Amino acid sequence: MTRINESLDSFFSPRSIAVVGASATPGKIGAIPITYQNDYGFNGELYPINPGRDEIQGRKAYPTLAAVGKPIDLAIFAIPAAAVDASLDDAIAAGVKNIVMFSAGFAEVSEDGKAAQQRLIAKARAAGIRMVGPNCLGFMNIARSIYATFSPVVFSGRAQTGSIGIVSQSGAFGAYAYAMARERGLGLSVWVTTGNEADIQVADCIAWMASDPNTKVIMAYMEGCQNGERLKEALALARDAGKPVVVVKVGRTELGAAAAASHTASLAGNDAVFDALFKQYGAWRARTIEDFFNIAYALSISGVPSKGKLGLLTVSGGVGVLMADDAADYGLDVAPMPQAAQDWLLAQVPFAAPRNPVDITGQVTSQVSLIEDTARVMLRDGDYGSLIIFLAAAGLTERMQALQKEVAQKLTAEFPGRVVMFSTLFTREHQRALDECGCASFQEPSSAIRVLAALDYFRVQRETQHIDRDAVIKHVALSPGALNEIDSLALLNKFGVAGVPSRIATRCDEAVTVAGSLGFPVVMKVLSSEITHKSDVGGVVLSLSNEDSVRIAYDKMMARIHEAAPTAKLDGVLIAPMVRGGVECILGVHRDPVMGPVVMFGMGGVSVELLKDVSFRIAPVSPTEARAMVDEVKLSPLLHGYRGTAPADIDALTQAIVGLSKLAMAAGETLESIDVNPFIALPAGQGAMALDAVVIGRSQSTR
Amino acid sequence: MTRINESLDSFFSPRSIAVVGASATPGKIGAIPITYQNDYGFNGELYPINPGRDEIQGRKAYPTLAAVGKPIDLAIFAIPAAAVDASLDDAIAAGVKNIVMFSAGFAEVSEDGKAAQQRLIAKARAAGIRMVGPNCLGFMNIARSIYATFSPVVFSGRAQTGSIGIVSQSGAFGAYAYAMARERGLGLSVWVTTGNEADIQVADCIAWMASDPNTKVIMAYMEGCQNGERLKEALALARDAGKPVVVVKVGRTELGAAAAASHTASLAGNDAVFDALFKQYGAWRARTIEDFFNIAYALSISGVPSKGKLGLLTVSGGVGVLMADDAADYGLDVAPMPQAAQDWLLAQVPFAAPRNPVDITGQVTSQVSLIEDTARVMLRDGDYGSLIIFLAAAGLTERMQALQKEVAQKLTAEFPGRVVMFSTLFTREHQRALDECGCASFQEPSSAIRVLAALDYFRVQRETQHIDRDAVIKHVALSPGALNEIDSLALLNKFGVAGVPSRIATRCDEAVTVAGSLGFPVVMKVLSSEITHKSDVGGVVLSLSNEDSVRIAYDKMMARIHEAAPTAKLDGVLIAPMVRGGVECILGVHRDPVMGPVVMFGMGGVSVELLKDVSFRIAPVSPTEARAMVDEVKLSPLLHGYRGTAPADIDALTQAIVGLSKLAMAAGETLESIDVNPFIALPAGQGAMALDAVVIGRSQSTR
Repeated sequence: MTRINESLDSFFSPRSIAVVGASATPGKIGAIPITYQNDYGFNGELYPINPGRDEIQGRKAYPTLAAVGKPIDLAIFAIPAAAVDASLDDAIAAGVKNIVMFSAGFAEVSEDGKAAQQRLIAKARAAGIRMVGPNCLGFMNIARSIYATFSPVVFSGRAQTGSIGIVSQSGAFGAYAYAMARERGLGLSVWVTTGNEADIQVADCIAWMASDPNTKVIMAYMEGCQNGERLKEALALARDAGKPVVVVKVGRTELGAAAAASHTASLAGNDAVFDALFKQYGAWRARTIEDFFNIAYALSISGVPSKGKLGLLTVSGGVGVLMADDAADYGLDVAPMPQAAQDWLLAQVPFAAPRNPVDITGQVTSQVSLIEDTARVMLRDGDYGSLIIFLAAAGLTERMQALQKEVAQKLTAEFPGRVVMFSTLFTREHQRALDECGCASFQEPSSAIRVLAALDYFRVQRETQHIDRDAVIKHVALSPGALNEIDSLALLNKFGVAGVPSRIATRCDEAVTVAGSLGFPVVMKVLSSEITHKSDVGGVVLSLSNEDSVRIAYDKMMARIHEAAPTAKLDGVLIAPMVRGGVECILGVHRDPVMGPVVMFGMGGVSVELLKDVSFRIAPVSPTEARAMVDEVKLSPLLHGYRGTAPADIDALTQAIVGLSKLAMAAGETLESIDVNPFIALPAGQGAMALDAVVIGRSQSTR
Repeated sequence: MTRINESLDSFFSPRSIAVVGASATPGKIGAIPITYQNDYGFNGELYPINPGRDEIQGRKAYPTLAAVGKPIDLAIFAIPAAAVDASLDDAIAAGVKNIVMFSAGFAEVSEDGKAAQQRLIAKARAAGIRMVGPNCLGFMNIARSIYATFSPVVFSGRAQTGSIGIVSQSGAFGAYAYAMARERGLGLSVWVTTGNEADIQVADCIAWMASDPNTKVIMAYMEGCQNGERLKEALALARDAGKPVVVVKVGRTELGAAAAASHTASLAGNDAVFDALFKQYGAWRARTIEDFFNIAYALSISGVPSKGKLGLLTVSGGVGVLMADDAADYGLDVAPMPQAAQDWLLAQVPFAAPRNPVDITGQVTSQVSLIEDTARVMLRDGDYGSLIIFLAAAGLTERMQALQKEVAQKLTAEFPGRVVMFSTLFTREHQRALDECGCASFQEPSSAIRVLAALDYFRVQRETQHIDRDAVIKHVALSPGALNEIDSLALLNKFGVAGVPSRIATRCDEAVTVAGSLGFPVVMKVLSSEITHKSDVGGVVLSLSNEDSVRIAYDKMMARIHEAAPTAKLDGVLIAPMVRGGVECILGVHRDPVMGPVVMFGMGGVSVELLKDVSFRIAPVSPTEARAMVDEVKLSPLLHGYRGTAPADIDALTQAIVGLSKLAMAAGETLESIDVNPFIALPAGQGAMALDAVVIGRSQSTR
């Protein structure tokens, strides 16, 4: 597997480009890249490859790549699938470094196509060639005037050069995104479509953009992911480089996932796992295409706020309320103004609402200076990291346009690092003018709030200490299949997940003795790695309060089991003290086919199954993340001393989650799943413990 | 209180208008309405009223309203608050029918202002004058060229005439909405701002628009509501008239509600109650301003689909998935195409995704007829009520614009009653062209899906039989304060809410006898209207299995109560059979200050308190709505036979909800609240019963 940190510089910034299947017919796939390069002034070498012509679109043509006789950084394959094999040999012979493969008819159409694609990439890899595609629209390095694409979208106009990099697995979406960016005036640095991702994936492009000096904001559109590790690494690189990543990942619901499977050759991972991934690696998952563009736009204009707290300045009380509602939904901190600042405003406008939202009322029409003065007071005295100024239809008159521009210039100069946004109806020209002053603007206040939620998320991400993940200190190789309960508990215990002190008994009298030594009451459970649902076979008895009841229970249980599971190999029974009180939780690990081990936390009872009230993180899970997993669950108030019960030992609980994650990392590829259910969080200071657990090793065939 | 069905025709369509405080100075409040009427050709009589002038803006001026000497349908008051009283006397003397009161300085500023407003409206009412305002921007009847507003927003351009009526409590929002409608090309019929709502409220405007032949779609922006009955009646009128109502109601969250209280003089009701109201009366509550406009726009262009099922036609598989995801979130039916239609498509495009979303792939660029052909097959063979056609950036080229227009014309002609929408990047001109063909279009597919969710909601509303509400057959007058448990249960029983068969005992031996006659095991509970939290004082004992245990429990309970609540008047103890099994629920009624009695349903346990997993309806609740309340709750699968338990008697449960609603209606103003907790739904066929209940009568002082 190619390593992510191999630079793709020669790919994205080639000094020489060859177009295999070059055409002189305008609009043909093999013509468009040459037309673009001619029109937009690529300042490297360009070699049309076509055995039937000496010259194409004013450029000298060559019969083969090898015939060029000079270094070729990038070869564009604009040829049918059937011709690819021969041209790849030619490329290898010519020492081509990188290929953009437009050709369709591979993994996206059939199993045969998939096999052909695998042969193709194996050959390219062996020759050290990197490749985008097949079945893609190619890429543009807009900042360097490189147009290695056959998408006709650029014929309708070029997008502005700017700081937003776009990577899209889908070509159709990529073209749409380019047009959308152009129509909205977003400035682009790089645009890539990855298609079938035989080699270069969305993750590789994110990783490269993380180091591309022209890219400050990364937009990624994904339909699936073949390699979770690469994606993690790429997102971490972008985060460490201070470049926000905004993602659209389609296939969220079951319906959507079914549609995705019929469309794409890639493996769509479980959606909650993607949510966890983006959260852990600091990317923002946009839920709609408008948010996707709105957020990238605002990031490119104003960046991430350096402080929290959101100030809302409005000329309409109702819209102020609407914005406050939306902000509360996103957990933004709409903190009130300091009293002195409120008093100042009331002295200006007696009927103003001075708290936050700050409503300067219709008074603004006769006293326009209120906008600047109030905004300044909010940023200075209110110390808001972000400020949204809602001015209704004001952006449509020249007088107010000039005023907004002046306010924007002054405030961004006076308060660097703060985000000032306008929500107002505007002409495109006026919006551009505000953009240039460093203020993003939105027609609709709800859009502005949703964008601010993302910007504030990136602020929190920046302020969060991203602790080095614990090195894996122990290694554990699990055998395929389930461990029995006591072995499961013992293994968990080694990784810091406490279990109830259980003991084995293999005979009735032993059970009685063990119970006596543990102290009554006790529980008795059948012990067998071949019985996973103990209750179903009558293999669990609770609240045994004396020796006699243990004796009777043992005999009855054995009788039931022999009837219900006559062939199961029994390891005896497990005797454990009956644990009372505490709060019931569920912990678990499952292996996601793409992302690897995923740790789960939930509260016990119906909430997990019916309400899906659980949280996920991809292992390794840090203590901070483990704590966040606990807090994320809607029923978590049950742990904080609900209705007079004692607060639970949340520290012990988070330690157990971290321990579970450590075990998952230690077991690596040999782990299938872990279920710890119930896991009891006792009152604070008294710890937490697993009452039952099953660790399952992965079968060899799936490793 | 003025009745809602009094026609406001002379208000909204006056034949004669006087402007009190008329001004010749351009831009003044008293000048603007006259300027507008002059510019836009009001074809009735216009009388400027100004004692200091003979002529204003080319119109003969009069010193007083009375001096006009002709009928005045509408007087616009463009004068300071201090001058209002005298002018109102003048208006009464002149026989003015209606007033638009721009004047500010009433209930929105102080208690004195509120009192002044009350005096004002009492006087107007006594004279039979209807009024909008005070503290409002007035109204425009765009369809009839009447501009009774001083908002300068019209100076920046007039909105198109069309079928959308807008009513806004807030003037600032109203002006913004007008400008937004104009910029987006929405056609308006009427525009009203209601300000302080001393007389005419948002509800009255909705009711009038329900009968206005020029209005087909109603947009309402509300900050609060003073009169729930009027709002219900208005929404029902609009629904019966087949006119969809789209609402923004601000003040959703606690933060928002706090801001609303500081801003508006009106009473903001509980938000969940508004949700219930809009649901019961068929209005759609838009959560963002963009949805507000998008939905009204689509309704005005294509109306409500006559069938369910949503078809998605896309040129990008990924965007198809995205749309399917969003549609699933909104519960839309993205049913697959019939097999024959799928086969047809695969014959055209072998690599197409033919189910739904239907992805015709990039093939469309070389075979543009695929769009029309596939869309037709989807509407004809797939029988989709709505179809969204995603064409990425196609709306930007002339060739594709012409093609889309042709497709739109043909499909709307061939399939009347269906909704066909485009999602594509477009120029405004192209969008207008599609609008004229009856197809709404959106740049972003997520917006289109959200709009379709609303359109489909209106379709379901139209198909739903809105049963006549049960007439109130019984009347019950409750005394202030709580009924004790047995009286509460007995009252509920009269309205069809079964209770556990409980009996009273006032002495220990009586308790023993009663328990024996009911059959063991029994529960014993202290009976006192003065003890609402029985458990807190040791007043509940469960599982008494024989005479001795009843005897002991009685004595101990009396001892505990005498200590814990020595002054409480006791009515004895209640003995009831111990109910086992069944599913625990909670029922309740509370009085909303605006909407009256609100019925609640929830599942027992922590879900109600921690997860707010409850449903509400405003009484009266029909059986259909009661059933919907049950299904709405996230934990409702517990009632359907969860994990091997028997399915619960949902019929009995819904009957109990209806019975509770009937009791609430019968008790009317005398009811404060009802709590039925727990309410047990037994296995299907075995009924459902209240195990405990408290009915509380409203204190006289708050009636």
